[in-house]
Amino acid sequence: MEKEPEPLSPAVAETHALEIARPDRFGTPVYVYSQMILEQQADKALAFPHAFGLTVRYAMKANPNQAILGIFRSKGLKIDASSGFEVERAIRASIRPEDILLTAQQVPENLPGLVESGIQYCACSLHQLSEYGRHFPGRTVSVRINPGLGSGETHRTNTGGPSSSFGIWHEMIPAVLSIAREHGLRIIRIHTHIGSGSDPKVWQKVAIMSLDTTAGFLDAGHQVQSLNLGGGYKVGRMSFEESTDLQECGAPVKQAFEDFHQRTGIELELEIEPGTFLVADAGCLIARVVDIKSTPSCNFIMIDAGMTEITRTGLYGAQHPISIVASSGRKGKVDDYLVQGHCCESGDILTPAEGDPEGLLPRKLPAPEIGDLVVVGGAGAYCAGMSAKNYNSYPEAAEVLIDNQGLPHLIRQRQTLEQITQNEVPLRR
Amino acid sequence: MEKEPEPLSPAVAETHALEIARPDRFGTPVYVYSQMILEQQADKALAFPHAFGLTVRYAMKANPNQAILGIFRSKGLKIDASSGFEVERAIRASIRPEDILLTAQQVPENLPGLVESGIQYCACSLHQLSEYGRHFPGRTVSVRINPGLGSGETHRTNTGGPSSSFGIWHEMIPAVLSIAREHGLRIIRIHTHIGSGSDPKVWQKVAIMSLDTTAGFLDAGHQVQSLNLGGGYKVGRMSFEESTDLQECGAPVKQAFEDFHQRTGIELELEIEPGTFLVADAGCLIARVVDIKSTPSCNFIMIDAGMTEITRTGLYGAQHPISIVASSGRKGKVDDYLVQGHCCESGDILTPAEGDPEGLLPRKLPAPEIGDLVVVGGAGAYCAGMSAKNYNSYPEAAEVLIDNQGLPHLIRQRQTLEQITQNEVPLRR
Repeated sequence: MEKEPEPLSPAVAETHALEIARPDRFGTPVYVYSQMILEQQADKALAFPHAFGLTVRYAMKANPNQAILGIFRSKGLKIDASSGFEVERAIRASIRPEDILLTAQQVPENLPGLVESGIQYCACSLHQLSEYGRHFPGRTVSVRINPGLGSGETHRTNTGGPSSSFGIWHEMIPAVLSIAREHGLRIIRIHTHIGSGSDPKVWQKVAIMSLDTTAGFLDAGHQVQSLNLGGGYKVGRMSFEESTDLQECGAPVKQAFEDFHQRTGIELELEIEPGTFLVADAGCLIARVVDIKSTPSCNFIMIDAGMTEITRTGLYGAQHPISIVASSGRKGKVDDYLVQGHCCESGDILTPAEGDPEGLLPRKLPAPEIGDLVVVGGAGAYCAGMSAKNYNSYPEAAEVLIDNQGLPHLIRQRQTLEQITQNEVPLRR
Repeated sequence: MEKEPEPLSPAVAETHALEIARPDRFGTPVYVYSQMILEQQADKALAFPHAFGLTVRYAMKANPNQAILGIFRSKGLKIDASSGFEVERAIRASIRPEDILLTAQQVPENLPGLVESGIQYCACSLHQLSEYGRHFPGRTVSVRINPGLGSGETHRTNTGGPSSSFGIWHEMIPAVLSIAREHGLRIIRIHTHIGSGSDPKVWQKVAIMSLDTTAGFLDAGHQVQSLNLGGGYKVGRMSFEESTDLQECGAPVKQAFEDFHQRTGIELELEIEPGTFLVADAGCLIARVVDIKSTPSCNFIMIDAGMTEITRTGLYGAQHPISIVASSGRKGKVDDYLVQGHCCESGDILTPAEGDPEGLLPRKLPAPEIGDLVVVGGAGAYCAGMSAKNYNSYPEAAEVLIDNQGLPHLIRQRQTLEQITQNEVPLRR
């Protein structure tokens, strides 16, 4: 099934793209982010319906550049960190430790130091809770529970349910309570993140399940103050993909919190942890057409970027809007094209079949010329932050932020080859 | 379908693994390579059947560490570079420029300088050939032809056929000849790489097709001296997977070259470009068990590595042997386990279903304890060189080489967080 050409990502206008891509400006490949869209998305997240207070934590793994962290800090967002390294990175970006909640698969070696610095910790396993309790008896802590329900579209985006390793399986709550008792831990936050979803019914269901879980902790004497429902709000990068309507998803959540208050007298704060929602459509990748090739069945646009910058097409068959920006303003005749990355790897393709990275799905695009630009939209989330960087020894791309006055700022320099090999140690024998 | 536990990767013995993984030695996660296996594989490649000479080029994208390049250089291997950056990296690793053949999807900006330094160039498109001819009229050059046949198992490992962008479609050879005439270029090498295969019949077929192609260039007056059949020899990392028998695949190739000689009087040199074959089973990844979790249907071994070190499980559903090394020498009761990486990403799994990264395939493994080691075999190729490094802000892992005396050498230091963010530029407004 072929799709109509997508409009240019709103993150960057055509004239901006031409200016930014100039070799004497920032060159290609380059990620470009729009401060305006980042702030608009932050505003939408902060408007999530809530009954008794809301904290929005940015899931920084989506894009950890300090400039982006700083913009969200200014908007009043806090931080969801997925590793001890992310915590340190956030602190270096001037995030206050008390605004960071660490929810990780792996206990960082320096957990005691991080906790002493003031961060909040969410235990994701019985082992993590024991370790924390051993170091910090009597303190407050959060626990992440797997409520037994997942909403991700595939196991790869599913972070709840029995095939997910995230959090503590809900039937093990008695063990959680026992460990908490052993170390005098006070559980003040329940965390249940179940994965990428946009269905208000699923949101309602998980809110009710999570509130029931929370009630169990309250019954056991813990003064739970907030319930964190995590993130994973699907963002439609393509016009035919659905996006999460936070107002729609949040309304039944707010109602559930109100009902909970009616039942228990407890005014629970709501926490959410969007990543993709905040940054995906605020960014794009600008690459340059380096070649155009054909076989009897396929036309290929070859670009100077690829899986080294956007790996999610190859990982998930993810779809991104793609536009051609011709330096001349010329509009070529529309035809079917595959967009191929620069790595010596067939799978380095920007136009996989939807949800099927083994398949190919040509796009209708105006015929480009070598030297034209290819703008890949929806590239703000899990692109610069999650890529097969340095494959084929290509350096990490530059990152540029367009501020609210429309001025581009370099926020990450292009990597050098020296940096790629800087940790290699010559073999002495 | 469940698989039997695999033997420990031969790249590292259990005692070695325990020593190397010690925090005061190299720590985890760490890639470990065996010089002995690297050299054994080089010997096998150099024994590829041939009639009139053989050049083996290491496809360095498989693992570009300078120590590995140096070992192969000492064995007499030359280099297949996939980008201008790889060329520069190889030269810095003391590879002689004349031993490097650049076969890339993208013309490097500094192509003229690289060619002047002495490297050989293989044009992979009409555009590339024109560019080369414009800069270097009258010189010798190689051309990569897509012979119209692919042997990869999926489009993602298929580098021949009409859905592949690699090389110049064979029906466009008249245009190749025309561009060569225009610039007085002399074509001395034909390159046809069609992807990962282990079937001698496919090898024979592609050799015959490629020789027919070569005959066309000879007929047009080009003094073709060598035919490069590329690489992509499948290596069975698991005991139930097939490996390429180079003697078996090479025999009909040799015969085809001899027949060609009979027919044309031309003694063509053979070139091959193995990557995986040379390094895959020479390396492993050593990680540490950081947690053990269960749901009613799954047991999870959580490790301090993951898609940040091995992305090919998530990309292709690739299978790697996995062993548990208990510090105590204890052997736990065998059960079904999923091995989950440390990233906050469900797809960060070392035990996908075979060829299906959306699926999960539990492994029979002895019950580990937290702190035990997990050794992932077959990790010498496309792991350190092609990974989602820095996702969740995890630093690039260290690399260690075990020399022929059994001594481990650090060949890449673990990255620091400072290095991850060294190119970020604070936003000044």
